[in-house]
Amino acid sequence: MRPNYPFNCWYVGATTDEVGQELFSRRLLGIHVMLYRLGSGDVVAMEDRCVHRAYPLSLGWRDGDRVVSGYHGLVYEPDGRLVHIPSQENVPPGVRVRTYPVYEQAPFVWVWLGDPGAATLRPPPRIPWYAEGQGWADTIEVLRVEANYLLLQEHYLDLTDVFVVHPEAVPPGVERLPQLNEVEVSERSVGYSRTVSSSGLAEWEAEITGLAATTAGTRREEGMFVSPALHVQHYAIEPEDDRAYGLLRIQGFTPESPGVTHVFLRMARNFATDDDKVGDFLKTMFHDWAMRDAGVLETIQRRLDEDIYPRRDINVKADRAAIRARRIAMEMVDEESGRFRLGKMLAAT
Amino acid sequence: MRPNYPFNCWYVGATTDEVGQELFSRRLLGIHVMLYRLGSGDVVAMEDRCVHRAYPLSLGWRDGDRVVSGYHGLVYEPDGRLVHIPSQENVPPGVRVRTYPVYEQAPFVWVWLGDPGAATLRPPPRIPWYAEGQGWADTIEVLRVEANYLLLQEHYLDLTDVFVVHPEAVPPGVERLPQLNEVEVSERSVGYSRTVSSSGLAEWEAEITGLAATTAGTRREEGMFVSPALHVQHYAIEPEDDRAYGLLRIQGFTPESPGVTHVFLRMARNFATDDDKVGDFLKTMFHDWAMRDAGVLETIQRRLDEDIYPRRDINVKADRAAIRARRIAMEMVDEESGRFRLGKMLAAT
Amino acid sequence: MRPNYPFNCWYVGATTDEVGQELFSRRLLGIHVMLYRLGSGDVVAMEDRCVHRAYPLSLGWRDGDRVVSGYHGLVYEPDGRLVHIPSQENVPPGVRVRTYPVYEQAPFVWVWLGDPGAATLRPPPRIPWYAEGQGWADTIEVLRVEANYLLLQEHYLDLTDVFVVHPEAVPPGVERLPQLNEVEVSERSVGYSRTVSSSGLAEWEAEITGLAATTAGTRREEGMFVSPALHVQHYAIEPEDDRAYGLLRIQGFTPESPGVTHVFLRMARNFATDDDKVGDFLKTMFHDWAMRDAGVLETIQRRLDEDIYPRRDINVKADRAAIRARRIAMEMVDEESGRFRLGKMLAAT
Repeated sequence: MRPNYPFNCWYVGATTDEVGQELFSRRLLGIHVMLYRLGSGDVVAMEDRCVHRAYPLSLGWRDGDRVVSGYHGLVYEPDGRLVHIPSQENVPPGVRVRTYPVYEQAPFVWVWLGDPGAATLRPPPRIPWYAEGQGWADTIEVLRVEANYLLLQEHYLDLTDVFVVHPEAVPPGVERLPQLNEVEVSERSVGYSRTVSSSGLAEWEAEITGLAATTAGTRREEGMFVSPALHVQHYAIEPEDDRAYGLLRIQGFTPESPGVTHVFLRMARNFATDDDKVGDFLKTMFHDWAMRDAGVLETIQRRLDEDIYPRRDINVKADRAAIRARRIAMEMVDEESGRFRLGKMLAAT
Repeated sequence: MRPNYPFNCWYVGATTDEVGQELFSRRLLGIHVMLYRLGSGDVVAMEDRCVHRAYPLSLGWRDGDRVVSGYHGLVYEPDGRLVHIPSQENVPPGVRVRTYPVYEQAPFVWVWLGDPGAATLRPPPRIPWYAEGQGWADTIEVLRVEANYLLLQEHYLDLTDVFVVHPEAVPPGVERLPQLNEVEVSERSVGYSRTVSSSGLAEWEAEITGLAATTAGTRREEGMFVSPALHVQHYAIEPEDDRAYGLLRIQGFTPESPGVTHVFLRMARNFATDDDKVGDFLKTMFHDWAMRDAGVLETIQRRLDEDIYPRRDINVKADRAAIRARRIAMEMVDEESGRFRLGKMLAAT
Repeated sequence: MRPNYPFNCWYVGATTDEVGQELFSRRLLGIHVMLYRLGSGDVVAMEDRCVHRAYPLSLGWRDGDRVVSGYHGLVYEPDGRLVHIPSQENVPPGVRVRTYPVYEQAPFVWVWLGDPGAATLRPPPRIPWYAEGQGWADTIEVLRVEANYLLLQEHYLDLTDVFVVHPEAVPPGVERLPQLNEVEVSERSVGYSRTVSSSGLAEWEAEITGLAATTAGTRREEGMFVSPALHVQHYAIEPEDDRAYGLLRIQGFTPESPGVTHVFLRMARNFATDDDKVGDFLKTMFHDWAMRDAGVLETIQRRLDEDIYPRRDINVKADRAAIRARRIAMEMVDEESGRFRLGKMLAAT
């Protein structure tokens, strides 16, 4: 399977807590990447492969900020330069292991695995609705799903599965989701919004807000494919005569390979921010939800893998945002391989 | 491995007992097929794949005779028509999941996965010697063998392995099987027959007939490759001055994929038809026999899979029927892909 | 992965103890080979595949020196000739299973899987330093390592990993290995030697020699890629005013397939030859050492297997012998496929 993800894009490589003094390794876009934290606190991302015999550097050890290979003891600076070979006096000049730009904004450590020169041109994505985190409390976990990252993006851009896969999450009396109010498309992102008319509270909504189950309120729901690497959903319970209760499901999707995706699942809330019980409840509930979603998507991936010839799905109206998202991702992929630009140029003549 | 099985052929998809109210799924000729029984008792065979996102329909549920997908709740009629999409008011016309002709003759549910128009031209095969089952008692079981279906067909068309693989099955005093009396070939089938001269009874023969081990009798043995999907063997113990005791080993061979075969193993007898003890004895003995055969054929399949270049086997005289059977199957495959007809046409000019 | 091992080369197929009355099977250079010992004591090597239906002959049984297939009972002479088919009177002339030249020199059974005519032109390799075993005691074991055989050859031709992977093995006070004194290259082999200046004894050296840890002595170390199939290392502890204590690590490397290697690990010593405790100590220590090395090489192999495009390693000075060895092996491979000779001829015009 040809990779269908762009390299020129910031991806979440790890959470802040995962990267410390230890040499941490994770496969991102097919590349084994080693991450560790310098004495200064900055994070280094380096290809996890000694230039000498392909042995993973993460199986070696640190010597201060340097890294020592666990096979023949070659030593590397944090910028990737080879600075010592134990079996000889001199080091050939210019030998280095590849390093990658890193941008940390807790709890995400973003990594740029594409064209090094392009990293600064595209800043890491901002999380919509989050406003640098003021007034929000977060929980986070990392999952590994054996499905292509676009299956995940598409899944969360079309919420009409909830009646089937998560019926207990639907507020009482709601029998179908209204059409999307709006699908907004920019060059690199797709968003939708939808308002569900007033109803009482689902059990989980009452639990986290502390309101009576009979409280009437509308729901505002917005979602965004911010980039191939980031999906954010905003869910607001808006009771009459009360403040709005906001939830954000922030998901970093980072392909390990074409068939596997790391999911960095953050749940943020702008209420009960000091109440760990509410945080734990949400984390557990959305963990279970994510695992059920993963089960569905892994099943679909296995079936797609068996297709000898690619087959065309039928799309429905609810897929409008998902189709746009897939098109944006594939344009980014094509652009990197040069075909897109060529196609445009030929069309212009 | 290119599939070496024809699609324009009736295959056993399941046993009558396997198909009921539940949504049952099995992979046949590489296609995931869902089977279930309508309120009327008729069996439906439908591709096990929602047209929307490839999710298996068998993981959804029934709504009367209709099927509801477990992902986004799309609803299908038994004829495959998509009739409801929960997230929108209308359904695009003409969308359907593929369904397959079914013919049930207990305990076999036959399915036609080839060209739909051709199903009625070729009726499901009749089981030789069986005469609609009058006077016979049956047992049945389903096995899954990790070997190509032609290895199974060939194995059962050449019984000379019994001295090596199943020596306890050979009547006492018989030291070699006589040459085949006859190999009969029609356009689509191959049969052989052989008569073993009189001898006493093997232990299992005495057990099932209730005769003394010293009873002398000839054995008539006939086998037939009825189609790529069906193999039948007839074994008759014919004591002097007594009726003949007939056994049928009826085997449906249905490829799951080129390397795996579902075996529908029926044992029928025309004596002691009311005696369950005899039925259980035969079922157990032929189960063990089939498992031993499967072990041999799976070993061979693994070795063949390792060959980088295909290698030519040496054939012996006992392979005469097997060679004919393979040729018939391959002609059916070639015919479907158009090459056979082209070859004939070119030869005719 | 295209095999990178030559066929025209003697490989260790088994140890003397592994081959007896039983039919023994091992995959060598991708070929399943059956080995057994005749009544005369000679060893037969035969392809482990009945000519009739690819069933492994090793799953059959012996009839004296002959072998009987466990499927249809075909019988073979030790020279591979098919001499009996139970289901018919005559045997087609000239049918045989392939056999391979064997040369046994305990504890190694060498097998030649290449061009049969060339076997006698290249005698099995002699083990350097060993002098037909006079004065040496041996232990042996067989390991299976999931790495290409050249990764093993290269590993043992560059001992500079010991400081990292086996620090407890280094004599006290030695902080780096001296440069190789010499790298000797013949047409088909590569050797190196190195002298480490006088130091006290490592713990294991004291244990096996019975000398005080403070005993000062130099170390002479020599290694040789004798052929793609054989690697020998000579390690001598040479205390002042005492005899030299010699150790040989003799390793037969036989590819099972491009990604897996059988290692026949012999440890020989020319002291304490009657002392089994010393033998057991060395066997255990070098077993642990080999397992640690195997772990490193298997990790590298897995990483190499993930590369879509082959990547070029950086070499260091200590790789000098390893690079020569790889070149010799690849020349032997090219020579067999005809490209090398062609390249030479073209260069000569």
